Amino acid sequence: MSETLKGALIIGQSGGPSSVINASAYGVIRTALDAGEITKVYGANHGIKGVLNDKLLCMDEEDRAELDRLPYTPSSALGSCRYKIKDPDVDDTDYKRILEIFKKYDVRYFCYNGGNDSMDTCNKISKYMKKVGYDCRVMGVPKTIDNDLFGTDHCPGYASAAKYIATSVMEVARDAQVYDTGMITVIECMGRHAGWLTAAAALANEKEHCVDFVYLPEVDFDMDKFIADVSECYKKNGNCIVAVSEGVHYADGSFVSEAKTAATDGFGHAQLGGLAATLANIMKEKTGAKVRGIELSLLQRCAAHCASLTDIEESFMSGKTAVEEMLKGTTDKMVGFECSRENGYECKAKLFDLADVANFEKKFPREWINAEGNNVNSDFAKYALPLIQGETKLEKEDGMPRFARLKKVFAE
Amino acid sequence: MSETLKGALIIGQSGGPSSVINASAYGVIRTALDAGEITKVYGANHGIKGVLNDKLLCMDEEDRAELDRLPYTPSSALGSCRYKIKDPDVDDTDYKRILEIFKKYDVRYFCYNGGNDSMDTCNKISKYMKKVGYDCRVMGVPKTIDNDLFGTDHCPGYASAAKYIATSVMEVARDAQVYDTGMITVIECMGRHAGWLTAAAALANEKEHCVDFVYLPEVDFDMDKFIADVSECYKKNGNCIVAVSEGVHYADGSFVSEAKTAATDGFGHAQLGGLAATLANIMKEKTGAKVRGIELSLLQRCAAHCASLTDIEESFMSGKTAVEEMLKGTTDKMVGFECSRENGYECKAKLFDLADVANFEKKFPREWINAEGNNVNSDFAKYALPLIQGETKLEKEDGMPRFARLKKVFAE
Repeated sequence: MSETLKGALIIGQSGGPSSVINASAYGVIRTALDAGEITKVYGANHGIKGVLNDKLLCMDEEDRAELDRLPYTPSSALGSCRYKIKDPDVDDTDYKRILEIFKKYDVRYFCYNGGNDSMDTCNKISKYMKKVGYDCRVMGVPKTIDNDLFGTDHCPGYASAAKYIATSVMEVARDAQVYDTGMITVIECMGRHAGWLTAAAALANEKEHCVDFVYLPEVDFDMDKFIADVSECYKKNGNCIVAVSEGVHYADGSFVSEAKTAATDGFGHAQLGGLAATLANIMKEKTGAKVRGIELSLLQRCAAHCASLTDIEESFMSGKTAVEEMLKGTTDKMVGFECSRENGYECKAKLFDLADVANFEKKFPREWINAEGNNVNSDFAKYALPLIQGETKLEKEDGMPRFARLKKVFAE
Repeated sequence: MSETLKGALIIGQSGGPSSVINASAYGVIRTALDAGEITKVYGANHGIKGVLNDKLLCMDEEDRAELDRLPYTPSSALGSCRYKIKDPDVDDTDYKRILEIFKKYDVRYFCYNGGNDSMDTCNKISKYMKKVGYDCRVMGVPKTIDNDLFGTDHCPGYASAAKYIATSVMEVARDAQVYDTGMITVIECMGRHAGWLTAAAALANEKEHCVDFVYLPEVDFDMDKFIADVSECYKKNGNCIVAVSEGVHYADGSFVSEAKTAATDGFGHAQLGGLAATLANIMKEKTGAKVRGIELSLLQRCAAHCASLTDIEESFMSGKTAVEEMLKGTTDKMVGFECSRENGYECKAKLFDLADVANFEKKFPREWINAEGNNVNSDFAKYALPLIQGETKLEKEDGMPRFARLKKVFAE
């Protein structure tokens, strides 16, 4: 047991938001507000930039009822940023400023809620504070729909995006099959480097056939093979639905979305219309089929109305555990998950070294992709299905979502 | 009271599907299965083409539990078509064939579930059967997310699409405001000729500000005004969200989505990327802002997981009333709605002449659009809010929708 450390806590959010990032923040805020040792709970306005700019939100000024709505409210409620903090050995200006602010508000607890870059920020701040001898505990609270964080079984935020994708794909599949004249539908999912989100489209196949092919960035994209796959399927079934990751790339590493292919534009211009439209148009040219390109776009990361309750609860647990661990003396860790799927699904919080998380990216396992490289196998469903269980408890007002409305009172 | 007419019923679905078109079909099927006079209930496989091709589905062969899931299942469960029946004075081949099939199966009741064209089909069949002296009652059961059918207060299917649009816009608005560096977001909604769907984006503003501008096809689009509107808003607020109808057009009638503007492509090529991407890119060029173009695409017409319970119940009522009226002797009508919003919302079924519905299109009222032509006023919200109330009772299975699975047994 470490000795008691009295002081304030700052929670910041960073990077692209998710449907449940505020469930994690709420886990931190609620637990911190209830902890005797934590004298004050601040939210950093727009992540680490809020600290640097001395823009701290007083969480104890917020109405309890609004805070309680945070777990069901999408997008970073405290505001996010994409500010990349420098290496302290190169330039320690930011760190000096952070230390100044920490001292000003007597901050002894710092939680940062985000992806790889945020864990890197966490790690650097933690190391710096140790170096200058400022007593402060630092914890990373993960968030990323991309599901690409090292170590943890999965990332808070992924499951809700996956649930939205699977649900939308099931609905689109019904729509695409409605006419006796078939259609080729290309659905584009997020995921620049990892295929986790696009793979979620295959969950739609669990009970009824929806998706014919799934193309992930973990396999080099081969346009000829893609055209052959889809053409054959369309010829056989009169219909074909494809899920494709925005990050699919050729063997040379160039993104398909940025490639200047003669097939898409006779003049060799890059297409503005996104990957789904490009691939759909190629297939129209090749087969004469009616086509649709659908980009799930931002909707997949903010569709809180379709969030997974499991995801919400686990995200909350991650934030709560971060504070509980800091109170026990833990620092310099990220609260991820360790899961068992042997006798039902069980998920426990597990601590990971920030330094490890900051520097690795977890790809979709090659052994969960079929030999042809155009679909995922049942191991993935075993992994992902438990994560998307349960429905959000999002309140409705006038038939529309009732999200948390924070007052955002700044500290003096 | 008309005398009792014993015989079979055919229900067909036509045109683009909606989230609740099967709620109407279920209203017809359930009521018909329970009616003593109706000897057999058939579903036309892919609309009128199912009749022409003698492909009729036996609805009494389906499991009750699956039929009961129809109201929560998107897209035309019986299959749809876009077949336009000829004028019988020009070519009566199709009508002779329909009569032949009606006689073969002793069909005395015919319900067609669709939009303007379907009401036209209904009307022509009804007139032909009268002309040749075949005793048959014909009813139109409306469906269209476009909400453009004449006479009726609103159309089954519109409210669920509107609810999905308003919900998605609220979620995207949260996401778009997350960074301290702002963004211009262009959200494209369906509606080639009428602005009802795009107007639904403004419902998101009821409780919190989400959308800054709404551009409907009822107002000629002025690119300079659009650029000025959005630039000024972005300059002032550092953020701007726009909803735009796919059908916006210039004063000369040409669609903005098809226009070859120098601003979007230096070589004057039409853009493949859709209107949202085109307008977003124009604003990026003009302001340097980060931009996002989001096309709600098919999702808005098939997102049954976000359907309005009011819409589901009214759609069911429309189908149920169609059968009840036919049993009373009514024919040649469409079952629309008459609503009152004075003391709470009340919606009653009302019959409209098929001939009237077939030949008119209901535009979004000019007096519900502001003087500048870039937003809608509060009269629209008064009209639309009651329609989107209540949540679907869609079952979930493994965290995903459990839609109806029909056996589809064909009649011999």
